[in-house]
Amino acid sequence: MAIVGSGPAGLSAAINCIARNRSVTVLGRKIETSMLYKAELVNNHLGMPNMTGKEILTSFLEHSKRMNVEIKEGRVSQILPSGQGFMLSFENEIIEARSVILSIGISKPGEITGESKYLGKGLSYCATCDGMLYKNKNVVVYSEIEEGTFELDFLSNICKSVTYISHEPPNINRENVTIINGKPSEILGDEFVSGIRVEGDVIPCDGLFFVKKSVPINTLINGLHIEDNAIIVSRLMETNIAGIFACGDCTGYPYQLSNAIGEGLVAAQQCDRFLFNNVKLD
Amino acid sequence: MAIVGSGPAGLSAAINCIARNRSVTVLGRKIETSMLYKAELVNNHLGMPNMTGKEILTSFLEHSKRMNVEIKEGRVSQILPSGQGFMLSFENEIIEARSVILSIGISKPGEITGESKYLGKGLSYCATCDGMLYKNKNVVVYSEIEEGTFELDFLSNICKSVTYISHEPPNINRENVTIINGKPSEILGDEFVSGIRVEGDVIPCDGLFFVKKSVPINTLINGLHIEDNAIIVSRLMETNIAGIFACGDCTGYPYQLSNAIGEGLVAAQQCDRFLFNNVKLD
Repeated sequence: MAIVGSGPAGLSAAINCIARNRSVTVLGRKIETSMLYKAELVNNHLGMPNMTGKEILTSFLEHSKRMNVEIKEGRVSQILPSGQGFMLSFENEIIEARSVILSIGISKPGEITGESKYLGKGLSYCATCDGMLYKNKNVVVYSEIEEGTFELDFLSNICKSVTYISHEPPNINRENVTIINGKPSEILGDEFVSGIRVEGDVIPCDGLFFVKKSVPINTLINGLHIEDNAIIVSRLMETNIAGIFACGDCTGYPYQLSNAIGEGLVAAQQCDRFLFNNVKLD
Repeated sequence: MAIVGSGPAGLSAAINCIARNRSVTVLGRKIETSMLYKAELVNNHLGMPNMTGKEILTSFLEHSKRMNVEIKEGRVSQILPSGQGFMLSFENEIIEARSVILSIGISKPGEITGESKYLGKGLSYCATCDGMLYKNKNVVVYSEIEEGTFELDFLSNICKSVTYISHEPPNINRENVTIINGKPSEILGDEFVSGIRVEGDVIPCDGLFFVKKSVPINTLINGLHIEDNAIIVSRLMETNIAGIFACGDCTGYPYQLSNAIGEGLVAAQQCDRFLFNNVKLD
C-alpha cells in the first residue's frame, strides 16, 4: 500500500495497515507544514486533553515509529494506473503499489498578508478548537464560505463582539455582531494579532478566525470524482476508482482531528479487504 | 442534546457538544460494561500506543470530566417525539432534549459458556487489536458472519495454525488452516483459555477469536431505519429522523475505537448545526 500524506489521517491509516500485517510506505512532508502544527490548544479530541497541535503531531509520529511506519519525505506529483496496481511519481522515483490511500489534506491558497506569521498567534482556522480562548473578547471572522455563519453563531454567543467580514452577509442579527461586506488585505499586530485591514479601514481585535475555501485538489489522478473540492467517498472510504481510498480533510468537512483518525482507520481496513479480494499472492 | 451511550463515541460527541457551547446530558452505563474495558492491548488508535482497554476508557472519562460532561448512569428504554424535540424514558424519569445522539454500541447475545469469563484472558473480539499477541501460536476463530473470512486470512498469515469454526465454510485453502462446520458449546481453560468444545470434540488452542452477529437494535425509537442490525446514517451521521444522529458501533462495521471517536465528533458538529437551523432561542 502507498499512503499519500503524513498528517493524522495518513498516519492512522499507516498504523492500521501495519496492524493488519500489510507492507506500507507513507509519502509525506515534515510535520511543521501541517496546519495542526500551529494550533494553540486542542481540547476536542477525546483522550488527549489540553494539548498543542505540535504535541499531538509529535505523539502521532512516535506511535508511528513504534509500529515501524516508514515515512519518505517528498511530494507525489502524479498517480497512474499500472498492470498490477498504481505507479506514483515521487520526487525522482517511481513507486509501485497495489493500492493507494490518499490523505492529502486541503490547501489554503490566496494567503492574506500576515497569515503565516500570525497563525497560532491570534489567528485560528477553527472556532471549535480555539473559540473559548476569546471568551468575552473582541474577535473578527473572515469567511469565504457559508460555514462561516455557524462560526459566527457560536462565537457571538461567547465573545464580547464579533465583526464578520464576508462577501455573503449572513442572516444573523445580534447586538454584538457587526457585518462588513469585503475582504481583508492585511493582518496587523506585533507579536500577537491586534487588528485587520479591510478596504482601507483598520478593525482592532483580540483574535481572528478565518474560514477559507479550499482549492480544487490537484489533478493527481485522472478520473477521480471530486465535488466541492472534496474527494467523493463511500462510508467505507472508497473512491470511484477501485484500489484508491481517501481519508481526512481531503474528503471534505468537518476538518477535524478525531474525524481524520477515524477515517484513516476505516480506509486502511477497507484497503486490506480490497487486497484480500483482488490480489492473489498464494 | 441528549447522548444515549457513554462509550468512546458518546464521550467524543459529548466533549464536542460542549466545545460548541451546547448543553448536553450523557445517559450511559459504567465503563466496566464496555467491551473495550477488557481489551488486553490496543495499539491501532493513533497517539495512544500500547494501552489496555481499561486505561483508554479511564483517560476518556478523565477528559470528559475536565470538560464538565455530565454522565447519568442508567438505561434509556424508549425515545418518543415531543413538540419541542424528544422525550427519553430514563429509569424512573422523563428527560427532554431538542436532539438526540445515539451511541448505543452493539450487544452480543447468544453467549457461549465461558465467554464473559475468558474475555481478555485468551478470548478476543478483535484480530486487528490482539492478533499479534498470538504470533506463531495456535488459535481458533469462531465466526457467525462473513467478516470472519478476513480475520482468518489475517491470522493464518501470522499464527502457527488456525482452526476456523463456522456454518459458512470460507474459500481459503492453506496448510495451517483447519475448517470445522459447527458451533462451539463451551470455552475451556483454567486462568487462561486452553481450548474449546465443539459438538463433543475438544480443540486445544492458545487463543480464541469470536466474530459474532450483533442483535437487532432494540426498537428504542419508532421508525428508525436499520439494516443488518446497524442504524443507517449519512456521512454526516444523520439518521432518517430529523434531530436524531447516531455514531460508533451502532452504525455498523468496523467496530473500532478510532472510528467511534471520529463519528462522535461528526455527530456532535452536525447536531450543533441542526439546532442552529431549527431551534430559535433568540
